[in-house]
Amino acid sequence: MPQSPVFQCEMQMRFDGLLGFPGGLVDPSVETLEEGLSRELWEELGFSLSVSLEDHVTSCHTPSSLPQLVTHFYARKMEEREIREVERAAATTATDHGHEVMGMVRVPLYTLKGGGGLSYFLSHSFIGNSRGQLEDALVRFGLVTPEELRAALTHAGQKRRQP
Amino acid sequence: MPQSPVFQCEMQMRFDGLLGFPGGLVDPSVETLEEGLSRELWEELGFSLSVSLEDHVTSCHTPSSLPQLVTHFYARKMEEREIREVERAAATTATDHGHEVMGMVRVPLYTLKGGGGLSYFLSHSFIGNSRGQLEDALVRFGLVTPEELRAALTHAGQKRRQP
Repeated sequence: MPQSPVFQCEMQMRFDGLLGFPGGLVDPSVETLEEGLSRELWEELGFSLSVSLEDHVTSCHTPSSLPQLVTHFYARKMEEREIREVERAAATTATDHGHEVMGMVRVPLYTLKGGGGLSYFLSHSFIGNSRGQLEDALVRFGLVTPEELRAALTHAGQKRRQP
Repeated sequence: MPQSPVFQCEMQMRFDGLLGFPGGLVDPSVETLEEGLSRELWEELGFSLSVSLEDHVTSCHTPSSLPQLVTHFYARKMEEREIREVERAAATTATDHGHEVMGMVRVPLYTLKGGGGLSYFLSHSFIGNSRGQLEDALVRFGLVTPEELRAALTHAGQKRRQP
C-alpha cells in the first residue's frame, strides 16, 4: 500500500461525467474573480476558503473556442489535515453534492510497480484544459518531478489506447 | 442542472488511479465470500453492510488471466438517503480512505444535451471487468434502459479516441 505523502491533490467528478477542478462562471461586473471562486468553492465543497491573487497560477484564452471563455486557474498548497476537512465537508454539507459534483477524488502522486497510479489517473477523461492545469500544478508545487510527469503521460497514452 | 434520481450508483477511485467497485481478495478457507465482502466494505467505506447471497449478480473466471482469479460481483439497490450515509462514512471514518481508496463518486445516470453524463463517465479507465459489471448492473436494476446504455457506449468510444 503506498504511503500517503504530506500534500494531496484533489479533483472532482463533475455532473457531466468528466474530471475537473471546482469552479464556475464569474461575471466580473458582479464580483471579482477571487470572490467568484470563493463562492463556487463554498457551493461545491461546503468549505470556506478565501482565495487571493497569490493563488493564481494561469489564465488561458482560446479565441477559436465557443463559447468565448477565459479560464483562470488557482491552486493552493494544503496539508493532508486540511484536505481531509475539505473532503468531509464536500460529502456532508456542500449544497452541490450529488448535483453539480458527483464526488471528490485524490490524485495518486506516485507510480506503482505495475505502472498504475498517476499514469492511469491521467488516462481518464477531463473537462477542457483541466488535465493540463493538473500537470502544470503538480510540477509547479513539486508534487512530482518533470521526469515523473513525462513518464506518467507516456503510460497514460498507452492506457487510453487500450479498448 | 440534472434532477437527482431516487437511486444512485456509486463507484470508487482506487489507489492505482482506476475506477472500480469496493471489494478485495477473499480466502474461502478463512471466510465466506459474503463475509469477506462485508469486511472489505467496512474497511473501504467505513459502513457496516451485511452482504448476502441474494446480492450476488455475476461470477467471472478468465482462465488465461494471471494471477488466476474468479471475480464475484454483488450489487445492492439503495435509496439516495442510504447512499449519502455511505458517502459520509467513506470520507470520515473509513480506515482505507486516502490509502486504498482515493474517493467515492456517483455515476451519472443521465445523458445531457451536449452528450455528456453516463457516456463521458464510461470513457474513463476501469480496473479489470468493472466497466462491464457496471453496465450489467445499470440495466439489471433498471437505472438505464438497454437503448440508453448502447447510445452511451457509442459516445464513450468516440470520447475515448479523442487526444
